[in-house]
Amino acid sequence: MTFKNEIIAMGVAPLARRAREAALVLATVPDTVRRDALLSAADALMNHKVEILAANERDCQAARVQMDKGHMSSSVFARLQTSEQGIKEMSTRMREVANLPDPIGQILTDTELAQGLRLQKVSCPLGVIGIVFESRPDVVPQIVSLTLRSGNAVLLKGGVEAAQTNQALVSILRAAFASFPEIPHDALNLLQTREDVTEMLSLETEIDLIVPRGSKEFVSYVAAHSKIPVLGHGEGICHVYVDASADLKKAYGVAFDSKAQYPAACNAAETLLVHGDIAQLFLPEILARFVDAGVELRGCPRTVALAPHVNVLLADERDWSSEYSDLRISIKVVDNLDQAIAHINRYGSKHTESIVTEDQEAAKCFMDEVDAAGVYHNVSTRFADGYRYGLGAELGISTSKLHARGPVGLEGLTTYKYKLYGDGHTVGTHC
Amino acid sequence: MTFKNEIIAMGVAPLARRAREAALVLATVPDTVRRDALLSAADALMNHKVEILAANERDCQAARVQMDKGHMSSSVFARLQTSEQGIKEMSTRMREVANLPDPIGQILTDTELAQGLRLQKVSCPLGVIGIVFESRPDVVPQIVSLTLRSGNAVLLKGGVEAAQTNQALVSILRAAFASFPEIPHDALNLLQTREDVTEMLSLETEIDLIVPRGSKEFVSYVAAHSKIPVLGHGEGICHVYVDASADLKKAYGVAFDSKAQYPAACNAAETLLVHGDIAQLFLPEILARFVDAGVELRGCPRTVALAPHVNVLLADERDWSSEYSDLRISIKVVDNLDQAIAHINRYGSKHTESIVTEDQEAAKCFMDEVDAAGVYHNVSTRFADGYRYGLGAELGISTSKLHARGPVGLEGLTTYKYKLYGDGHTVGTHC
Repeated sequence: MTFKNEIIAMGVAPLARRAREAALVLATVPDTVRRDALLSAADALMNHKVEILAANERDCQAARVQMDKGHMSSSVFARLQTSEQGIKEMSTRMREVANLPDPIGQILTDTELAQGLRLQKVSCPLGVIGIVFESRPDVVPQIVSLTLRSGNAVLLKGGVEAAQTNQALVSILRAAFASFPEIPHDALNLLQTREDVTEMLSLETEIDLIVPRGSKEFVSYVAAHSKIPVLGHGEGICHVYVDASADLKKAYGVAFDSKAQYPAACNAAETLLVHGDIAQLFLPEILARFVDAGVELRGCPRTVALAPHVNVLLADERDWSSEYSDLRISIKVVDNLDQAIAHINRYGSKHTESIVTEDQEAAKCFMDEVDAAGVYHNVSTRFADGYRYGLGAELGISTSKLHARGPVGLEGLTTYKYKLYGDGHTVGTHC
Repeated sequence: MTFKNEIIAMGVAPLARRAREAALVLATVPDTVRRDALLSAADALMNHKVEILAANERDCQAARVQMDKGHMSSSVFARLQTSEQGIKEMSTRMREVANLPDPIGQILTDTELAQGLRLQKVSCPLGVIGIVFESRPDVVPQIVSLTLRSGNAVLLKGGVEAAQTNQALVSILRAAFASFPEIPHDALNLLQTREDVTEMLSLETEIDLIVPRGSKEFVSYVAAHSKIPVLGHGEGICHVYVDASADLKKAYGVAFDSKAQYPAACNAAETLLVHGDIAQLFLPEILARFVDAGVELRGCPRTVALAPHVNVLLADERDWSSEYSDLRISIKVVDNLDQAIAHINRYGSKHTESIVTEDQEAAKCFMDEVDAAGVYHNVSTRFADGYRYGLGAELGISTSKLHARGPVGLEGLTTYKYKLYGDGHTVGTHC
């Protein structure tokens, strides 16, 4: 029986129970074994690149048919297709995560509560993680690196477009792990269908965390249909605020990069806020740059008035709460820093917010008072990324305030347990 | 208009919006102000003890009527009633939390990502906390200490039995905070009715965390009826496992204390697991001690067989998954450590689990492999408590793995934000 048929025959619930068993074992697997298994898997990717490329070509062939019918965009196709260089990068990234310090078994606090009574707070894996992601094949080794390095079992479900590629990758990784007898076979499994995902969402006793990577609608659906905690973000409504004391050169760079460098990313900016005192100086030039880059402009009345020679549509209320994810930006002129902060705290999605200013006091206010996972001073919002943050890889970006916030790497895949060591201590006699 | 009428006139939604505003301000209030406000509030409790005792007496009078009608147990009454000594303790505890190190503004990591690009992970308040608790009046100053010290706004709702006492306490605390102009009036509010709680659960855009302190049914109800993250525990099914290599004296002490010292507590043990090799030696004595203390016994067939002279009912499947919260215990003889661990991972509620053994290897296995917030070696499960852990006070005990786990103090009321400082850094040119 092939691996795929095995899952179809079993259903997700027994698979998740086996993942739970695997997770209990995995939590005790030594650092070196988890590291070496990932290094071995990184080698395996390179050794099996021909199979991966062949599987990817089968996915791409099917995708081309969908593109020809107008059922798939060229940007989705571009993310689906991989190459020898792409596989090399997957392998390198895996190696990097393998070589990160062990996130589990770390003693976070160590206190002597009383004579002979010692309390240690020790990091440990979450258990079983369910991850549903879009069509990019490089997500598979990235997620497997993070989950195995942190001692978690994982149930993966990728986009149907990348089914062959994902299957090939998972088979190669599982085969590599099989050389390490300490690592349970069920530490990694790939789900096949949408029905599998629906079933997975109901398995709250077996699964500790669901990570949905996809559209806002998908993330909302998952959160509404599962009692399992969800890590991720529905929206990335990020702002750049250009203060009265901004250095104009930095402001052009940060505003343009935040919007136009890769507008489909969740950390791209959707709204530009500009202090009234600098608007007349700053707006004409940045708007011209945006127009040159094909960015559609929506502005408040003051913006429209300040840019008579540029095509700026009048923004309405919906623009301030829209994640365009496209070459479009909304622009608002504000009277002062407080108005900018209030706008962001009202319309932002608590993802990433940037101020451009040379006024250190204004920067401090902004960074303290804006309620978001990332608050930046003179930096493009596009830096909100686990790899750029030095986390090695990224499970996702969390806009929740509980547990992990912002880009989530290994640490977000751990919890802790309190270990209390005594000598027969009882509350009745030692309290 | 009195404070109470003000809330009735307003409804919870506007109050929660004002709490959100207050939270944004409170997040920037300096350490010393938050500390001094709590010290001042601790003084105020002592200065107004006559009013608190009078309000408490009104609650107690009403409660006595309920007791006479058989609508209230004497244990609930005992928890409701406070005294001059009780108020002194509230005041002392408040002082202790005031003097704990500031949990917010702590730099958790500090990394230079690139030339001139510095990333700091800084602790900050969660925002607005909604807390629903039972009738103990000392919970009010405890929660207010924790939330104000950590810069969070709070919406409190106590048991209806303690309405007068809670109202008096909240009024005194608010009056004390009013001397500190930096602290917003709406940092602390008391809800009045069950309908207020229902409304609060729907305000997911205004409230960041709900802490339900009450019965398993109540906690489940809250989790099922709110999209707001919930911190707490539904059940405390804790075990004591007496290993073959246990020191008998320690085993008697730990097993007895875990069950009988205060059986209504969530950290009291419900099941005793005993290694077969020591059962004949250990069981007769511990069972006799339990019988003397009025503890009802439910045992597996081997337990029953080993205790012919003691009244042990045969346990059924439900006993292993029951939180008795009473003078009753279930007892099971197991063949080995692995069976004990498997039983706990199957039936435990991931709260607190203890092994009694002199075998360090067995203790290590137990503590690594048992999946619970607290894993203890030769210690009574009753130690699972924020105050005993040195957290100053306790918001609750979390059996969730995300965010805070185990007894939750100040740190569990914080999140973090990433602050990124640059000099015009853009991804397009610096990546």
